[in-house]
Order: sequence, then C-alpha cells, then structure tokens
Amino acid sequence: MAERTFLDGLRDRATRLRIHSIRATTAAGSGHPTSCCSAADLVAALFFDVMRFRPAEPQAVDNDRFILSKGHAAPLLYAAWVEAGALSPDSLLTLRRIDSDLEGHPTPRLPFVDVATGSLGQGLSTGVGMALAARMDESDRTVFVLLGDGECAEGSVWEAAQIAGHYRLDGLVAIIDVNRLGQSQATMLEHDVQAYRKRFEAFGWRAIVVEGHDMGQVVKSLRSARRRSGRPVAVVARTVKGKGIPEVEDRDGWHGKPLPADTAKRAIDSLERQLHGATLPDVRPPTRRPASLAAPSRLVPMPAPAYEIGASVATRQAYGEALAKLGKLNPAIVAVDGDVKNSTYAERFLEACPSQYVEGFIAEQNMVGTGVGLGVCGKIPFVSTFACFLTRAFDQLRMAAISRANLKASGSHCGVSIGEDGPSQMGLEDLAMFRAVPGSVILYPADAVSAERCVELAAGHRGIVYIRTTRPKTPVLYGPDEPFDIGGLKVVRQDAADRVTVVAAGVTLHEALRAWAELRQRGLAIRVIDLYSVKPLDRPGLLAAARATGGRLITVEDHYAEGGLGAAVLDAVAGEGIRVHKLAVTELPRSGAPEALLDRYGISARHIVETVLEIAPGG
Amino acid sequence: MAERTFLDGLRDRATRLRIHSIRATTAAGSGHPTSCCSAADLVAALFFDVMRFRPAEPQAVDNDRFILSKGHAAPLLYAAWVEAGALSPDSLLTLRRIDSDLEGHPTPRLPFVDVATGSLGQGLSTGVGMALAARMDESDRTVFVLLGDGECAEGSVWEAAQIAGHYRLDGLVAIIDVNRLGQSQATMLEHDVQAYRKRFEAFGWRAIVVEGHDMGQVVKSLRSARRRSGRPVAVVARTVKGKGIPEVEDRDGWHGKPLPADTAKRAIDSLERQLHGATLPDVRPPTRRPASLAAPSRLVPMPAPAYEIGASVATRQAYGEALAKLGKLNPAIVAVDGDVKNSTYAERFLEACPSQYVEGFIAEQNMVGTGVGLGVCGKIPFVSTFACFLTRAFDQLRMAAISRANLKASGSHCGVSIGEDGPSQMGLEDLAMFRAVPGSVILYPADAVSAERCVELAAGHRGIVYIRTTRPKTPVLYGPDEPFDIGGLKVVRQDAADRVTVVAAGVTLHEALRAWAELRQRGLAIRVIDLYSVKPLDRPGLLAAARATGGRLITVEDHYAEGGLGAAVLDAVAGEGIRVHKLAVTELPRSGAPEALLDRYGISARHIVETVLEIAPGG
Repeated sequence: MAERTFLDGLRDRATRLRIHSIRATTAAGSGHPTSCCSAADLVAALFFDVMRFRPAEPQAVDNDRFILSKGHAAPLLYAAWVEAGALSPDSLLTLRRIDSDLEGHPTPRLPFVDVATGSLGQGLSTGVGMALAARMDESDRTVFVLLGDGECAEGSVWEAAQIAGHYRLDGLVAIIDVNRLGQSQATMLEHDVQAYRKRFEAFGWRAIVVEGHDMGQVVKSLRSARRRSGRPVAVVARTVKGKGIPEVEDRDGWHGKPLPADTAKRAIDSLERQLHGATLPDVRPPTRRPASLAAPSRLVPMPAPAYEIGASVATRQAYGEALAKLGKLNPAIVAVDGDVKNSTYAERFLEACPSQYVEGFIAEQNMVGTGVGLGVCGKIPFVSTFACFLTRAFDQLRMAAISRANLKASGSHCGVSIGEDGPSQMGLEDLAMFRAVPGSVILYPADAVSAERCVELAAGHRGIVYIRTTRPKTPVLYGPDEPFDIGGLKVVRQDAADRVTVVAAGVTLHEALRAWAELRQRGLAIRVIDLYSVKPLDRPGLLAAARATGGRLITVEDHYAEGGLGAAVLDAVAGEGIRVHKLAVTELPRSGAPEALLDRYGISARHIVETVLEIAPGG
Repeated sequence: MAERTFLDGLRDRATRLRIHSIRATTAAGSGHPTSCCSAADLVAALFFDVMRFRPAEPQAVDNDRFILSKGHAAPLLYAAWVEAGALSPDSLLTLRRIDSDLEGHPTPRLPFVDVATGSLGQGLSTGVGMALAARMDESDRTVFVLLGDGECAEGSVWEAAQIAGHYRLDGLVAIIDVNRLGQSQATMLEHDVQAYRKRFEAFGWRAIVVEGHDMGQVVKSLRSARRRSGRPVAVVARTVKGKGIPEVEDRDGWHGKPLPADTAKRAIDSLERQLHGATLPDVRPPTRRPASLAAPSRLVPMPAPAYEIGASVATRQAYGEALAKLGKLNPAIVAVDGDVKNSTYAERFLEACPSQYVEGFIAEQNMVGTGVGLGVCGKIPFVSTFACFLTRAFDQLRMAAISRANLKASGSHCGVSIGEDGPSQMGLEDLAMFRAVPGSVILYPADAVSAERCVELAAGHRGIVYIRTTRPKTPVLYGPDEPFDIGGLKVVRQDAADRVTVVAAGVTLHEALRAWAELRQRGLAIRVIDLYSVKPLDRPGLLAAARATGGRLITVEDHYAEGGLGAAVLDAVAGEGIRVHKLAVTELPRSGAPEALLDRYGISARHIVETVLEIAPGG
C-alpha cells in the first residue's frame, strides 16, 4: 500500500475512534470524550500499525501489550478493540451501564484489559513488571503505556521511570498525551513538551517529541520507539484536548463531560466528512510464539519445614528461607524488595534464585505495581518491605484488587515489637489496610514452620495474599507435618475446664502462651488460638471455642485497635452475642525495647492475665 | 575570624557530630552511625554557618527550619542540637530508650522537631508546605531539607520537586547526601551526582554539585543556596557513608548498625585527633522577627448555614461553600486540592480566597505532606481529593499522626453511590484507613447543614480530621441552628415503639429514612441514627438506642464491610453483648447508576427493610 494511502487509512481509524468515543459517552450521559480525542491518533497508529497482536487472543503471551494508564479515556480503548474486531460496535452504546462490561474506567472484566486503570500514574509500573517478565521469558513483545500529561504529576510515574531506566527496559514504551489540560485547569507544564523530554531523559530514557496529530510523525516515532535501543522510550506527543470537536478543542471546562446530543451530532458529522475512505489497515500479528512462554505449571510443593520445635527463628527469616526454597523449585516465583532485603530476608531468595529477583529500591508504589505486571504475565510475584511502608502503596493495592491481580506481599517489622526504631517503622495499620482490600487473604504466622507454610499457601492461591512477619525471634511451635490452610486456625492450648478463649497471632501468640502458663499456675485454664489466617478466618472454629469457654473471647494483637485481628474476630462472632475483649495498641507508641513496649501498650502476657482474671467467673 | 580558622571551627563541629553519633548509637546498641557520618559536614555547615535560628526558641516563626528527611540519621540531628546548646550531651546516651525523647527516628516529642521523619521521601513535601507558608506570611525564613540519596527513589520526592519548581519556591533548599549506599546494596545512581543534578534541573530547580566533605565547598554552596534566586535549590553532595570511621567508610553491610565498642573507641580516638581546637562558630540568629507572623488567632465562627430543609445539595458542594465562608473570615485557613477542585468543590474556596489556595495537581502524597508543612507553620490546612485517592497518601497520613499534625482532609466521591465512573473512583476503604490513624477524627455528614458544621468543627479541632463527602445530592435534613459536635450523633427518627435501631451516615442515612417510611406503612417503628461523627463516636448514645430497641442494631454504610462505620459501632457496643447486623459493600463493585448500585450491593432502603423484618420480633 502506498504510504500516503496507508496513512490516510490510519487517519480514518483515528477519526472512527473519535466518533465511537463521542457516541458512546453521549449515549452514557457521562465520560471523557475530550480525553479520548487527544489520543486517538496515537492509539490508531499503535493498534493498526505499530503493535503486533492477535485481537481474538488478547491474552496470548506473544502479543505486544497496551496499558491505558489514563484510564478515563476508556471509550477510546473500547473503540480501538471495536475497530480491531474484538468487540461489536453496538456494545459501545452500553458504556457505563450496570449490565455492561464496558465500565467507566477499564477493568479486567474485559478480556483485553490486563489491569484496571483509572487511578492515575499506575500504568507505567505495571508496564515495568510486564517488560521485566518479557525479559525473563526472552520474549520480544513490547509493552506500550499511554499516559496523560496530568498524571505525570504522580510520583509513581517517576518511580517507574527510574526503575525502567535503571534496568534499561527497552521493551517498554511510554506515550505521553500532552493535551495541556487537566481536570480542573491547565497542567503544570502545559504544552512544554521539551520539559517532559528532559525529565524522561534525566531518568535514563530515550525520548522523542512528536506532534500528536501528525500521523506521519506519530507512526515514525512509534515505529522507532518499538525498536530495541538499550533504553526505554518515551514518546512525548503534543496534542489538543478534544481534537476533532471544534466547539471544545483546547478549551478548559470540558474534562469528563459528554457532549450534549446536538454538539455530538455536529462533531460526528464533521468527523465523518474527514474520512478519506481509504483502505483501513489491519492489526498486525506477532511474528513468533516463543516456546518458553507456556502457561505456568502447577506449583511444585516444598519438602516439609526443617525447623526444630523450640528453636528460635524470626518469622521474617523463615519467610525468606521458604521463598528461596520454593523459588528454586518454581521458576515462576519472582521476588521484588524495596531495598530492605536484609531485613525482610528476601535476600535469601536473591541468593538462591538471582535470575528471579528484582531489586525494587525505595519505591514501594512502583514495587507493588511492578508485582501486578509480573503477575499478569504468569509470574507469581512476592513483594516485600516493612509492613508500615506498604501503606505507601495502598492505592496500588486497591487497584490490584480491581485488577484481580495475582500478587503476594510480605510486610516485616509489624507492630511495636520492632522496638527501638520507633513508630515511623512500626506497621500498626497494615491489617486494617489489607482487610479492606476486597478478596484479599491475610496470613500472620507466629513461628517459622507456619511462616514457611504460609509462603507456600500464598504462592498456591490465585489472588492477593498478605503475609505479616515479625522482627524478633520467636520459638518454633509446630512440627514439620502440621497442616495449615487459608481460612484455618490452630487451637494451641485447650482443656475441658477452659474459661476464656484468647485469640492471638504472631508475637502476641507467644504472650498468650506465657499467660496460659501463668494462669495454669493459678489453677485457671484458658484456651489459646493461633489465628494465623486473619482473612478469611475460621468462624465456626472461633464460635466453637467461644461457646466452649462461656462465650468469653479475648483478642490480643500487635496492631492498632481499629480494623485488625480483633475487628476481624468481632465481625465474625458479634452477631452471635459473644462478647469480645480486645487488647491492641490504642495510642501512638514510642521507641523502646520490644518487651517493654509490648507491656507498655497493653498487649503483653501480663495484660492478658489481668483481662482473664477480670472476666473469667471466679477468676 | 579568619576564613581558615572559621572553616576549621566548622570542621571541628562536624567531627564532634560524628563522635556524638557514634557514641550514642553504640550506647543504644542500634542505630545508623554511618548515615550520620556522611552528612556531618553538611549539617555542621548548616547549623553553625548558614541557618539563622535561635536554639532556645526552636519554634520561633522567624527561624530558618531544618527537616531531616533521612530520619534514620536522627543521632546526627540530636548531636547538632547538643552542639547548639539546646540539649545536654548526656542525653545522647539515652538514645532509643523508652524513657527518652531521643527516639530512633525524630518525632515532635522534641521541641526542635517539626515533623516526624523515618518513612523516607516525605521531608521535601513538608518543606514545600513550610516554604509556601513562609511566602504567604512574607517571611524570609529558609527551609532546608536533608535527603538521603536512597530516598530519592521515592516518587514523593519528585512530586515535591515538581511543585516546588512550579511555584518557584526559592525559600526551599534540598540537600542530597549522596553517600552511594542504600540499606541493602548500592543505590541506583551510586555516586553519579550529575544524574541527580540533571533530575532536579529537569524539575525546575537550580542545582549545585559539591564535594560533601570539603568544608569550604560545602559552606560556599549552602550560602549560595540560601540566597533567593527565583527557584528552589538542590545541593547535591557527594559523600562517603561512614566518613570518619576508617574501618567502615564506603563499605556495604554497615547500614543501620552501631559500631561495636572497640571499633567505636578506635573511631572516636581517631576523630578526636582530627580536632583542630579552633574556636567553634556559634549559631546565627535571624535578622528580624516579621510582625505578620503572630500566633494564629482563635477561629472566627461562621454565621449559621443558610440551607432550606428539603433542598437538594451534595455534601461535597456544601463542603466547598463552607470552606469558602470560613476562609474569608479566617486567613489561616489554606486549601490544597489535587486537580479535582471542580469535583470536591474546593474551587469555591479558590474563588473566595485565592491567596489562601494552593493547587496541588495530581500528586496526593505531596498534597498531604504539604498540608502537614503548612500546619507546622500555623496554617489550618484543608487538603481534598476523591476519597479513594487519599489512599495514595496513607503513609503520609500515618506519619502525619506521628508528627501530631494539624491537618484536615476531605475525601469526596465516597462509595458506590458515585455511580458510572466505576470502582477505581469509589472510596470504599477510606474509613478503614482513617480509623487506623491514631488520634484522628472522622466526620461524615449526610446533608449540607451538617457538612458545613463539620468543616467548622474540623477547623477548630487541633489534629487530623477527615471529612467524608458524597457525590450525589441529598436533601437537607437539619435546620440552621442544629448543633453538631465531634463525638456526637443525631437520633433523627424515634418512637417508644421502635424495635430496631438503624445506624447510618451520609448517603445511607437517606436510605434508612426511606426504610423508616416504608416500615411505618407496615406499622413497624425503627429508630434512625445519623452517626455523622464516626470517630470518636457517641458510645452512650448508641448503647441507649440499642437498649431502647431490644439490643438490635443494624449498621448500613457505603464502604467495604471491613473497618468502616459498622466496625466502629461493633467496637463500641460488642462488649455489651449487643448484636450488630452490618450492611456494607462486600464485593468488588462495578459501574452503574448510583441507585442501582446501592441496591445491588446491599445497602439500599430495600435491604434495610428486609433486615429489619428479619430481626425485629413479629416483624
């Protein structure tokens, strides 16, 4: 096909994308047509010239991938897949309806959406993960991420940019749609495309500035970007918001607003007149199907844990050892750590499986987003840092849930038991955070054996799993053959005479065991439960214990009183009229020795004993 | 004093800072002496030559300010204040003890610490807030922020950098201690100081590269940095981790490790031999006390709300109107919004009080950090964005609590009631997040009058207050003189015959009122509570209502089931054996019309009616 005719065909595709986007949002009565129109030429060139993929098999491993980081331009994405033949044009008119999978922002309810977007600044991190996976798998697929200019204000974009630059991820292309206007006013940099170029270059990228509505330039630059050059590539495109809709082009106050019916009609008429009637270019398939990219095999189970009962081992160390052990058997397991691998013990995994490890440096948002991207590509990603620093990535975790991601996170150094480093390093809200992530699993082992089993359970579970580990060493409680399950609990002390049930996990389980011993001296029996699976939890098991002990439950946790283990237990049993006495950290803690802090903040054996004596009849 | 002698005096100060840092951490048995030593020359020059402050009045408004963003170098900070005469040298030997305010990372338990640090990458945002406050107050004080090189991997640093560049905050100086080594390995950029320079320049800064142990160069560059030049200034200092301790200098594996006693002794002996015995330079006081910087006056109260009962107004709009009204009366009120001011209605404040508004763009971490910094300087900052995007700043909120910050946050667009935009835009975990912030207050108004009162309550309360607002319009329920209090609730429907109490807030209160009307038709009376103060909550009020209605409580909330309003109620009453039936969102929602989504996810009037009928005797 002659170049001129070919470009006209792409221009027609772009025009059709605009028409679809306007029609869909006007039908829906809400949405972002102007944000679609600025990027229509870029997306047309990507889908119908530059990217190599099979529309009927959107998840095929050899496909190039496209992430719409500026998720509010969802209709443009849907329109592109309509034009590619993977969606019916009629479906666009169901946009944003409760019975439609064409949601307001893209979600993986649609087969061609790898990750949900719509919280800005997250797509590039996902792209980093997908590009890293491609490199590990020796695939030549390229990952394209379309970002808005406004979203480049998100620090997470620069976390991703620096990591991509550092690892020279030349399979990653960022396209910046510099349309000058944010939601409520102009962006900081407006049309200063050179500033974007300088920033990406300073972060180790090759950057190309392009007129985003000049199809010839767009095609040339994107083709160039797809070629491997030892660096990731940023295509900085100067565009006009609302391009193709003369009444709103480049005008403030038109973000997130559908066109009224008459304006839409005029715009569509005008766009239709721009169609060249050229032959429309087709999607280009990938050139190869790499053999190494087979679906991940089932998890190879680990041999039984090798710890001796009574030995003193920190659960964070057991986490690292278990991950190393599992990783050697399962090449799909990948770990990313935030420059604390000597604290989280992810370094054990690095030592054992160096090619499966990615150093994430001190950039937790990108670490989580990268994990999501690795998971999309069939890896089983474990990301780790201090529990408190995972709060940095709450929005990424929230979006991971909407993305139905397969992601494992480990937070070490939970609670006041970390001691002298003080409150800034204590994870005291991580359980509340992960409990509020829909569909998540939360595992909180109290000893090395259960920690090892939790790692295995996490790897085998499809979804988001959080493993909470503890800084100080704790004694091994369980034998090598003890079974653990997601949703299980262990009754570690019981007797027919038990008068109260104490529910604990992690470091507080050992406090509960101390309390048990002390109370036994006084002739008072208590039941002790290890609630290693905080979410889901074994409600029947908890109820049975509570009923066997007069309906009296004490929860004790190294976490703030809100939203943690005690709250989980309350949620499970409160409807049954069972009274729960919650011991938790109820004020801002300070530096000090771990044991002193457990005691000062009311979660030591002494407090458990006192609470038992207070509530147990005859206690 | 001759320049040579003067520099020797500064060198001696630096040497003494190293000695103090080594001694303190070895005595504590933990801590980060090597991270102190790399920055000792920089801090000596700052404290004893460049900064203008009064050590005895560390919070005086005319002082230059210093933020140790690399908070793990806390002993260096404490040592500097010892040398400045504000702390006794002996106190250094109490470092990290439970009875000492010299915590492992700095907290405002010490009078010279404005904000807690230790979660990396947050100090520069605080500095932005403090520099903005200085500009608003026409103060010439300069804010110095010392960052580690490793922490520059945090995206929040670049959020702050871009905003400082955009606003040309020439009262802000960042000093980057490029010591090459992170916690677990070398940083990405190692000693590539030019890369840091390029990055800061690309983000709109003036950048100076300096040898960080050459006191002459350090002094010259920091003096130059303090001079106003229309741009913020980054001093990129090439340093050596552990400088001055020959056995560990520039060696990996020595992060966060105190020196063993013998190594410490050898290091201190060697450092003491380096002392010149020069006259030590003193701290320099500020040149003026600007009159405009008086302590903020008491809040001028607003006139009563002017809404008509039954009028339809979104609480987010009432938030913006109230803030504008309050801001006009109180110049200390400042608002920052994340480029959604036309959605949160912060634009009303911008229109009314333009000089008190700062556009924060799409950078929520920096927005919250900036708010903290504004609060330190006597402003009453209100930051706003969609409720879900505040999750982006959970770590900043966590640190704000440790900083005992005076910060108000408003999250609009909570819950599934936002409708068609879909799950990425729905705040469904914000209550869980803010409840887990120690000392926080959470207000969740259901109508315009209470929203206006909540803004006033928030402004008048010293601490962290979260105001949750709703997207759709809701009818005005309360008259202009209705009183509201932090920790209060409203019984909006009651009768002696009530058989169940329904506790709701925000949009679900209106669903509860619909259920009340429908049940009344059926001859069944229910009590309805508006729990507008979710934290703290009125426990006696809840218990009284529960007891008056047979111990039967239903909670209904537009939030996930974990950690929200229902959890707060459970926490308050479960110890009393009261059964709580929680209605909340229990799965990942999707796009759709607001009413349809409320119904689909089980929190509409219909579900309340059904639950009442299920549990009310004879219902």
